[in-house]
Amino acid sequence: MNDFKVTPWEVSGDIDYDELITRFGTKRIDEEMLHRLAKYGPLHPMLRRGVFYSQRDLEWILDQYDKGNKFFLYTGRGPSGHIHLGHLTPWIFNRWIQDTFDVKLYFQMTDDEKFLFNDNLSLKDTKNFAYENALDVIALGFDPAKTKIVLDTDCIKLLYPLALEVAKRVTFSTAKAVFGFDNSNNIGEIFYTSIQAAPCFIEHALYGKATPCLIPCGIDQDAHFRVARDVAPMIGMPKPALLHSKMFPSLSGGDKMSSSEPNTTIFTTDNPKTVKKKIGQAFTGGAVSVEEQRKNGGRPDICAVFKYQFILFEPSDEAVDRLAERCRKGEVLCGECKQILTERITKFLEVHQQKREEAKEKVQDFMLSSKC
Amino acid sequence: MNDFKVTPWEVSGDIDYDELITRFGTKRIDEEMLHRLAKYGPLHPMLRRGVFYSQRDLEWILDQYDKGNKFFLYTGRGPSGHIHLGHLTPWIFNRWIQDTFDVKLYFQMTDDEKFLFNDNLSLKDTKNFAYENALDVIALGFDPAKTKIVLDTDCIKLLYPLALEVAKRVTFSTAKAVFGFDNSNNIGEIFYTSIQAAPCFIEHALYGKATPCLIPCGIDQDAHFRVARDVAPMIGMPKPALLHSKMFPSLSGGDKMSSSEPNTTIFTTDNPKTVKKKIGQAFTGGAVSVEEQRKNGGRPDICAVFKYQFILFEPSDEAVDRLAERCRKGEVLCGECKQILTERITKFLEVHQQKREEAKEKVQDFMLSSKC
Repeated sequence: MNDFKVTPWEVSGDIDYDELITRFGTKRIDEEMLHRLAKYGPLHPMLRRGVFYSQRDLEWILDQYDKGNKFFLYTGRGPSGHIHLGHLTPWIFNRWIQDTFDVKLYFQMTDDEKFLFNDNLSLKDTKNFAYENALDVIALGFDPAKTKIVLDTDCIKLLYPLALEVAKRVTFSTAKAVFGFDNSNNIGEIFYTSIQAAPCFIEHALYGKATPCLIPCGIDQDAHFRVARDVAPMIGMPKPALLHSKMFPSLSGGDKMSSSEPNTTIFTTDNPKTVKKKIGQAFTGGAVSVEEQRKNGGRPDICAVFKYQFILFEPSDEAVDRLAERCRKGEVLCGECKQILTERITKFLEVHQQKREEAKEKVQDFMLSSKC
Repeated sequence: MNDFKVTPWEVSGDIDYDELITRFGTKRIDEEMLHRLAKYGPLHPMLRRGVFYSQRDLEWILDQYDKGNKFFLYTGRGPSGHIHLGHLTPWIFNRWIQDTFDVKLYFQMTDDEKFLFNDNLSLKDTKNFAYENALDVIALGFDPAKTKIVLDTDCIKLLYPLALEVAKRVTFSTAKAVFGFDNSNNIGEIFYTSIQAAPCFIEHALYGKATPCLIPCGIDQDAHFRVARDVAPMIGMPKPALLHSKMFPSLSGGDKMSSSEPNTTIFTTDNPKTVKKKIGQAFTGGAVSVEEQRKNGGRPDICAVFKYQFILFEPSDEAVDRLAERCRKGEVLCGECKQILTERITKFLEVHQQKREEAKEKVQDFMLSSKC
């Protein structure tokens, strides 16, 4: 067993993503599944490149879809700070599924969770971050007619009865085993997974329909939905299906970009100067001298700059392969790569920040609370 | 240590009420306090006779009141079935405080609690009982302008942020110690005390005011408010004060009238024939023969019929003392007492049932949910 940890509240060590499939009992997205998915539209690069690499019950979701029983998407965000590129990755992927399958998305903002799990945040803080973060969601171009943001404390009247149905069927033993809780956890933390499970069944509360639910999320969130999946049949609901992504890497080369390490994290609100500085200091694994790099080549497998192109910024698989090849041969130096990535991120953020400003006028169109 | 148990979910054994004061660390309502209370209006029989016999911070509540800082009342009901006389006792007392001090009352209906703690009840069941039970509250003549019924699932948007503030500051260790939880309790049960604590601070949520709160309730509910009182200063709120009553006895002579033993319990919906039958079978502790009873006398100290007169139906202290005296001397037989009590309960229920019917038109005036 490798010495790494992946839970909703802690990701540490060198993650072995194959091992996680075994550990969590999920299913790899294999060639056959990619082939099937390609029938609905051009495969997203994050699928082709194995960024979204694991699933639960995706076959069933597609079977239902093929029979005319559309699923809805459910994803979310714990609003404890500003948004970075690692947060955007699964959201961009959600947008692709929404467009490809023409389906609804419920986007949960867990202001209650972040309040309960952070000593230094007030409920007002997390609610403010929720509105700030909603701007980043909206900026990605979701269709307001098909996308609703579910702010927990605002939509609690809708969520609470669903959460109670879940909570009644989850013992502290289970919560301990799944989340690693002990006697020092507060009773809100212990209850919270019920609230994260609730949107899996939200269409039943809204429309009386047991609509299939597909959750694209980081694999660190799987624990919550293992609980939700265990409970679903007990309350007469279909188990939510999942699509798991790997973590978005830190600029330091670590496995997960984290808001708590701002120098190795690109926030959507960063200005070009800051981006340049952060990318300039990024970990690449390159050699100490130009001479040596030319001779021995670089290491795209551990290079943060390469991973960013790979995950988010280079749409062409061929270009990615060529870049890796040239790097390994020493034909491209880290400085060049950093410059290209800096330009791409700067351009991306310029557009995003513009759309984020425009989003301020649209927030109410996206909030579910105005409907419940 | 006596072998009895008093928690919000279990009352068993022969309760030693004096011992409970020590065990819970509350304060007896002594002569000095009764003297002070008498200044606000004629003392209620339940105070004179020690039915409400224990308190926390009542001096402070009265000090604040004397300075012009009015408290509000908070009491409640777990809607898991129909209402019996034992439920009405503290509500009648609340009505007296409301009238005497001209204060508001928030009446919590914990449909969520009863759902979480009862395998056989759905949330729909407990919500239905909540509306049924509300009729009994309203029938007691509370002023709708000063009385609001807080149905948890309906008012959760107001209660949840308050509950989160509490939950963040209560560990599982504390919940275990106070409520006797273990690993087999469900995570909703563990969280629930936060929801019962929330109305202590409801005026802060509604009006931004840290209004003093006084909770008249059965002493079995004390555990919830020990938790609420510990947390209050941490969130900048005054500790809720308490007035504790003894349990309303069962007709079998047991310490607590219980819905789960319908034959020894008078429900507000019982008809005269049922009342007559139940009282006829009540435990009195009297002798097996008339002859023996005339000779040795009865035992009002353990007689359920006497306790009912004492607690609820005989307003005159003198008449109560005289009845006890006559019973001990064998001057009154159990049959006579049962007949008098039957008549009084029948008359009381006739009026109550009429008012309960009229209450059906008034429910919306009393529900807080229409305001939040």
